[in-house]
Amino acid sequence: MNVELMQHTSLEVTAHAIRTCWQSFDNSDEGGEKDLALIDRVGNKYKHASTLEHLVYTFYLSGVSRALLQELARHRMASLSVKSTRYTLKELKDETTFTDGMSMMELKEKYTNPDEVYADKHVVRASKYLVYTNVLGVDFSSIVALENLRIMLIDGVSNDRAKFCLPESYKTELTWTVNARSLQNFISLRSGKSALWEIQDLANMVYDNLPTQHQYLFNDCV
Amino acid sequence: MNVELMQHTSLEVTAHAIRTCWQSFDNSDEGGEKDLALIDRVGNKYKHASTLEHLVYTFYLSGVSRALLQELARHRMASLSVKSTRYTLKELKDETTFTDGMSMMELKEKYTNPDEVYADKHVVRASKYLVYTNVLGVDFSSIVALENLRIMLIDGVSNDRAKFCLPESYKTELTWTVNARSLQNFISLRSGKSALWEIQDLANMVYDNLPTQHQYLFNDCV
Amino acid sequence: MNVELMQHTSLEVTAHAIRTCWQSFDNSDEGGEKDLALIDRVGNKYKHASTLEHLVYTFYLSGVSRALLQELARHRMASLSVKSTRYTLKELKDETTFTDGMSMMELKEKYTNPDEVYADKHVVRASKYLVYTNVLGVDFSSIVALENLRIMLIDGVSNDRAKFCLPESYKTELTWTVNARSLQNFISLRSGKSALWEIQDLANMVYDNLPTQHQYLFNDCV
Amino acid sequence: MNVELMQHTSLEVTAHAIRTCWQSFDNSDEGGEKDLALIDRVGNKYKHASTLEHLVYTFYLSGVSRALLQELARHRMASLSVKSTRYTLKELKDETTFTDGMSMMELKEKYTNPDEVYADKHVVRASKYLVYTNVLGVDFSSIVALENLRIMLIDGVSNDRAKFCLPESYKTELTWTVNARSLQNFISLRSGKSALWEIQDLANMVYDNLPTQHQYLFNDCV
Repeated sequence: MNVELMQHTSLEVTAHAIRTCWQSFDNSDEGGEKDLALIDRVGNKYKHASTLEHLVYTFYLSGVSRALLQELARHRMASLSVKSTRYTLKELKDETTFTDGMSMMELKEKYTNPDEVYADKHVVRASKYLVYTNVLGVDFSSIVALENLRIMLIDGVSNDRAKFCLPESYKTELTWTVNARSLQNFISLRSGKSALWEIQDLANMVYDNLPTQHQYLFNDCV
Repeated sequence: MNVELMQHTSLEVTAHAIRTCWQSFDNSDEGGEKDLALIDRVGNKYKHASTLEHLVYTFYLSGVSRALLQELARHRMASLSVKSTRYTLKELKDETTFTDGMSMMELKEKYTNPDEVYADKHVVRASKYLVYTNVLGVDFSSIVALENLRIMLIDGVSNDRAKFCLPESYKTELTWTVNARSLQNFISLRSGKSALWEIQDLANMVYDNLPTQHQYLFNDCV
Repeated sequence: MNVELMQHTSLEVTAHAIRTCWQSFDNSDEGGEKDLALIDRVGNKYKHASTLEHLVYTFYLSGVSRALLQELARHRMASLSVKSTRYTLKELKDETTFTDGMSMMELKEKYTNPDEVYADKHVVRASKYLVYTNVLGVDFSSIVALENLRIMLIDGVSNDRAKFCLPESYKTELTWTVNARSLQNFISLRSGKSALWEIQDLANMVYDNLPTQHQYLFNDCV
Repeated sequence: MNVELMQHTSLEVTAHAIRTCWQSFDNSDEGGEKDLALIDRVGNKYKHASTLEHLVYTFYLSGVSRALLQELARHRMASLSVKSTRYTLKELKDETTFTDGMSMMELKEKYTNPDEVYADKHVVRASKYLVYTNVLGVDFSSIVALENLRIMLIDGVSNDRAKFCLPESYKTELTWTVNARSLQNFISLRSGKSALWEIQDLANMVYDNLPTQHQYLFNDCV
């Protein structure tokens, strides 16, 4: 999983937006401590949450599974442009076998030492396409599904049919634009223990990749 | 795939909403021809599209794949409550084998006549969980993935790990609430030839399941 | 101010939407106590707030000021169709004078007993168009503005120019469609003491006009 | 009326977002002609409009009337932070009379030459607070309303009551954050001849204040 912050609004502009309401521009310290305290006070404590919508972040997220994407896309106050399986599955055609024809059960039996598994060259090569769970049976099942998908594509099956046997562990990437209000909701709901483990990781990683100066707005969410 | 319209706003209420603007309530024929012409004229021709937002539909969609759900969830002006794999995968624990231990290649070789395939009892039983593409290799790959998933769950793997080897053909169901403005956008984009075949089917089936009297608002979208 | 609930989704459909996630339809008591407890537990306590979006209300609000409308329209997760000043100001052309040519100061001096003011036939007639604040000077200012507006319209000034001298106390009406999640936000923010007095009244009146059985979902907001 | 673009996303980031779908990053010319053609092709011609949502603008709008604000706020896919009458009306307390006690009719009679009106020192001073329509009667009505409002505030009436006699011509200002998709909708609907004259001006001025390189995305809307 990788999170890259591509761009964001400045806190100075956010503070300016808030100061519009009271026309208190003269109190600004141009994005300094007073402005930061204002944003927290109005946006969080006074619950004038719409002011936080001027603060917009664009992230590039990669190495996340399509299982995670199912959950991420439910956060509808955000804009997503996602790697399309319909247009990019051809990437698998250049690959050679990931399984040497073995089934999930045969792959499990092949290894006595789990540590060896994730060093295996096939498994390493497949990790370009798959998010692993570190449950051997699940990961081998994903690898078998990847192999079957590869064979389908080489057989000339169209992406629009082949994609139906894609495992949800398949890696995707996306450009994600989200404002601070919606991001607070996302981090609150998804960094909690009851969230799916992978999206917990994402929520924390998104928080870590915010500009340091911005993190205080999200401290109560993590 | 099944589409059931659970409830909807009446056209009379929609016409009333439009008549608010001009206070032309006296011109109403209580949901009759004049009101219907008004909705089309204002909402569609005059592009006062927000008036169509009062017209809200709740559908129950079932037998659609999670591949389709990936696309459906991108229509963010709608509300979705979806069957959760995290809570419901245990349904597979009561099943017996779907493959008799065969791989995708072995399953393909077993049948010389494709017509037999979809009458096979394993394949029929798996159709409770999978959307078929009618490409044998893809469907057998899905069945092998389903079988591996079943084994993982019986082995006691948690849903939150097991779900990563779920094939995207896995069937899901959802309650979907969408207003007429957003539904016009959905049907326009998704009934077209460049859309994924399964969501084309859905777009057409949603149209077919609208109240007959409402369909005229969507005729230009199909 | 008047609030009329024109239509709403049933709690049974809302409960059904929630049961989609766990496929727990068999536990339903068809909109009975179990279903009601479920909606509160999932939508409120578990913060799975999107489930409350299936529960949609359409209200007809009348006798509210355009000052209030300025605030109501900021709640963007809702659909508004509003009486248009651009199309309906002609209603004033049939009226006779509201002031007998007196200024705000002259009107104030005319009355020694405030109780008489609101029984005055001009003041009563003007109340068809104006929300009163019960501050005499403010209400007379509104009446003078109304009178000036009336004169402009009779003079043949177009609505699009005349509307600029409209006082914000001018009454409007609207059809308002809002889901339970957004309505909770509205009632929470607008029934509080720091809100504008008129929108406090509206928030409380909207709550009062919910179906009795639905009010429990909003009890923590008022 | 004044429009200032405070910040915006770069076209390079927008093009990157679009290239996510096809993973065609290698085709980028870093915000050059190829990228610009791509954004127009995908966002406009192919109607993959969500890609335009990554392109976000923050404007500061001032000198617009609250009549205009009523319409602007209906564009709900945007974030507004607006000068609050509830907090800022005290600005009028430092002013002296705008009318010398004259009524709208008396003010109209005072001037035989309309050109003199807008050079009058009272009228000029009031223009700090009012949008003029250049219809004398309407503008004098606004000035009388302004004067009455000033007297109320000096009399110690609270902002929350006094604001009800505010004329809709009263000037306001706001920070407005809107993405390119929603801005296209705004400019299309509001630059047309059937729109209110003041919002037509705004729509054109917003277009004029876009970065020159961005305007091509909106050429079909004006």
